[in-house]
Amino acid sequence: MTAASIHPTALVDDQAIIGSNVAIGPYTIVHKNVSLGDNTVIGSHCELGCPASDAAHGGMLSIGKNSLIRSHSVFYEGSTFDQNLTTGHRVTVREQTRAGKNFQIGTLGDIQGHCRIGDFVRFHSNVHVGQKSSIGNFVWIFPYVVLTNDPHPPSEVRMGVVVEDFVAIATMSVILPGATIGRGALVAAHSSVARDVAPDVVVAGSPAKFVCNTDAIKMKDGSNASAYPWRRHFHRGYPPDQVLQWINEFTH
Amino acid sequence: MTAASIHPTALVDDQAIIGSNVAIGPYTIVHKNVSLGDNTVIGSHCELGCPASDAAHGGMLSIGKNSLIRSHSVFYEGSTFDQNLTTGHRVTVREQTRAGKNFQIGTLGDIQGHCRIGDFVRFHSNVHVGQKSSIGNFVWIFPYVVLTNDPHPPSEVRMGVVVEDFVAIATMSVILPGATIGRGALVAAHSSVARDVAPDVVVAGSPAKFVCNTDAIKMKDGSNASAYPWRRHFHRGYPPDQVLQWINEFTH
Amino acid sequence: MTAASIHPTALVDDQAIIGSNVAIGPYTIVHKNVSLGDNTVIGSHCELGCPASDAAHGGMLSIGKNSLIRSHSVFYEGSTFDQNLTTGHRVTVREQTRAGKNFQIGTLGDIQGHCRIGDFVRFHSNVHVGQKSSIGNFVWIFPYVVLTNDPHPPSEVRMGVVVEDFVAIATMSVILPGATIGRGALVAAHSSVARDVAPDVVVAGSPAKFVCNTDAIKMKDGSNASAYPWRRHFHRGYPPDQVLQWINEFTH
Repeated sequence: MTAASIHPTALVDDQAIIGSNVAIGPYTIVHKNVSLGDNTVIGSHCELGCPASDAAHGGMLSIGKNSLIRSHSVFYEGSTFDQNLTTGHRVTVREQTRAGKNFQIGTLGDIQGHCRIGDFVRFHSNVHVGQKSSIGNFVWIFPYVVLTNDPHPPSEVRMGVVVEDFVAIATMSVILPGATIGRGALVAAHSSVARDVAPDVVVAGSPAKFVCNTDAIKMKDGSNASAYPWRRHFHRGYPPDQVLQWINEFTH
Repeated sequence: MTAASIHPTALVDDQAIIGSNVAIGPYTIVHKNVSLGDNTVIGSHCELGCPASDAAHGGMLSIGKNSLIRSHSVFYEGSTFDQNLTTGHRVTVREQTRAGKNFQIGTLGDIQGHCRIGDFVRFHSNVHVGQKSSIGNFVWIFPYVVLTNDPHPPSEVRMGVVVEDFVAIATMSVILPGATIGRGALVAAHSSVARDVAPDVVVAGSPAKFVCNTDAIKMKDGSNASAYPWRRHFHRGYPPDQVLQWINEFTH
Repeated sequence: MTAASIHPTALVDDQAIIGSNVAIGPYTIVHKNVSLGDNTVIGSHCELGCPASDAAHGGMLSIGKNSLIRSHSVFYEGSTFDQNLTTGHRVTVREQTRAGKNFQIGTLGDIQGHCRIGDFVRFHSNVHVGQKSSIGNFVWIFPYVVLTNDPHPPSEVRMGVVVEDFVAIATMSVILPGATIGRGALVAAHSSVARDVAPDVVVAGSPAKFVCNTDAIKMKDGSNASAYPWRRHFHRGYPPDQVLQWINEFTH
C-alpha cells in the first residue's frame, strides 16, 4: 500500500477511509462518513461528507477508485460513485445520489440527490439535476440544463425525469416533471420539454416539438455522414473495448 | 451566554459582533463590519463582510439569530437579514440587501444587492436577483430564474422587478425590467415575462402570455384538488401558527 | 519596488512571479506558472495556475497590472490577460484564454479556454463562453448567456461564435455554433440565435428573428433619445479619452 498524500492544511477525520495512493489538496475538509478509493485525487478547498439534512438519508459517501474531484466541490454523505468519477470545480452533490462508473460532472454542477445515474454519463458545466431523476448510460447533458421534478411548484409531489441511454440534451433546456426522453434522442438547445420524447428523434422549441429523426442531421465536418447516433463518430474518453463494439455496430 | 465555537483556522476580526452559541467553520473569514445573531452557524470557506464597492453603501452586515450559512458563501457588508436565514453553498449577496425572517437562498444564489425581500421567501438553487428588485412575502423562486433591471442594456436606468406575495416563478424564467408579478401568480418554466402579470393567473412562454387562472391547475397526486393557492396544501417549513391560519382560510 | 502583501495562510510557489505591491488573500494557492502584474489584488480561497489538462496548452498564466481577482476564483495556466482585469467571485478560466485590457468577468463566470477576447469587454454574472469563441472590443454579455460551439453534440467539431465590437447580448440567451453577431447588434433576453445577426439590429425569440434597428429603441429615462449605440449615453468605467471620443462621435 502506498501512503496517501494529504496536504498538511487538509482536515481529514480519523474515521474517514482513505485508499492507497490518495491525494488530498490544501484547505480541504473530509468528514468521517467518507470512503475514498485508491488513486483518487481531491483538489483544494473541498468539503466531503457534509451531514445529510435527514439522518435517515445519510451514511457513507463512497467515491470509487481513480477518481478526481476538482477544487471547491461539496459532496454530502450518503451517496455512492463507482470508479473513475471526474468533476470540475465547485460541484455540489447532495445525499442519496447513486452513480455508475466514469461519471463526469462539469464545473458548477448541482445534483440535488435522491437520483440514479448510469455508467459513462457526462455533464458539461452548470447542469442541475432535480431529485428523483433517473439517467441511463452514455448520456450527455450540456450547460445550463435543468431536470425538474415538481409539476405544480411548490408542492410535495415529485415526478422525476427519465433520461434513457445515449440521449443528448443541449444547452439551456428544461425537462419538465415526469417526462421521459427516449433512447438516443436529441433535445435541441433552449428547449422546454413537457412530454415524452420518442427514441432517436430531435425535438426543439418551447414547448418542444418533433423536428426530424436524429439520423437526418448531417456532420458539419464536410463528410455529410449522419451525426447521430453520436457513438458512430465520437469516441473520446471511452474505453477501447467499448469503442470497438460501437465501430462494429456501424460497420456490419 | 454560551461561548462561540470558532474553528482555529477561521479568521474573525476582533471588531465583529459574535452572538451567543455561534459556530464558525474552518477557513472562513469574518471581517469587522459583521454581526452574527445567537445560535447562528457559518460553514467552511466563507467570507462575510466584504467591503462594498462604494463606501456609502457599506455599514454592518447583520445576520439574525438562528441562521445557517453554508460553505463557500460570500456576503458583503451593508445588508440586513432577519432571523432564521438559511443558505445553500456558494451564495453571493451584495451590499444593501434587506431581507425579512426565514429567508432561504439555494446553492449558487446571486443577489446583486440594493433590493428588498419580505418574510418566508424561498429561492431554490441558482436564482439571480438584479438590483432594485422588490420581493414580497411567501414568494417561491425556482432554479435559474433571473430578475433583471436594465431596459436597454447597458445603461444607467434601473427598473426593478416587483414580485408580490405568494408568487411562484418556475425554472429558467426571466422577468424583464419593471414588470410586476401579481399576488399568487404562477410563471411557468422557461418563460420570459415582459409585462405585468395579474394576480392568481398562470403565464407561460416567451413572451409570456395568459394560460389560465391558477386554480384551474389540478394536483397530480390523485386528489384532483386545485394546486393553487399553494398554501392550501404545501406547509413544509412554515411555523405552526401560520399553517393553522392557512388551513382556516381554506376551510371556511 | 514595494513588497507584496501575501497573507501568511496563502500558498505561493517560489517560482511564481509576483509584481510590486501585489496583495494575495488568505487560503489562496498560487502555482509556479503564474505571473501577477504590479498592484494586483487576489482575494481569498482562489487557485491560480492549475495545470492544463494537456501540457501542450499550458505555459504561464499572466495577469496584467492593476488587476483584481475576487474570492474563490480558479484560473488555469496558459492564459494571458492584459492590465486591469477585474473579476467577481467564483470565476473559472481555463487554459489558452487571451483577453485584452480592462476585461471584467462577473461572479460565477465560466470561460472554457481556447478563446479570444478584446479590450474593455464586460461579462455580468454567470456567463459561459465555449471554446473557440471570438469576442471583439467593448462587448457586453449579461447573466446566464451561453456561447456554444458544437453543432451536433457530442462531437469533435468546434464552430466558435463570433461577437463583434459593441454588441450586447441580454440575459439567458444562447448563441448557437458558428453564428456571428454583427457590430453593435442587440440580442434580446431569452433568445436563441441560430444564424448570423446583422450589425446594429435587434433580434429576439427562439429562434431569434429581426425586430428592429437598434436606434429605434428609445431611452426609458424620459429623454426619448435612442438607447443605441449605447456608447452615446453609457460611459461608466471607461477611460476619459475613450469617452471623449464617443461624445465627439455623436455630436458632429
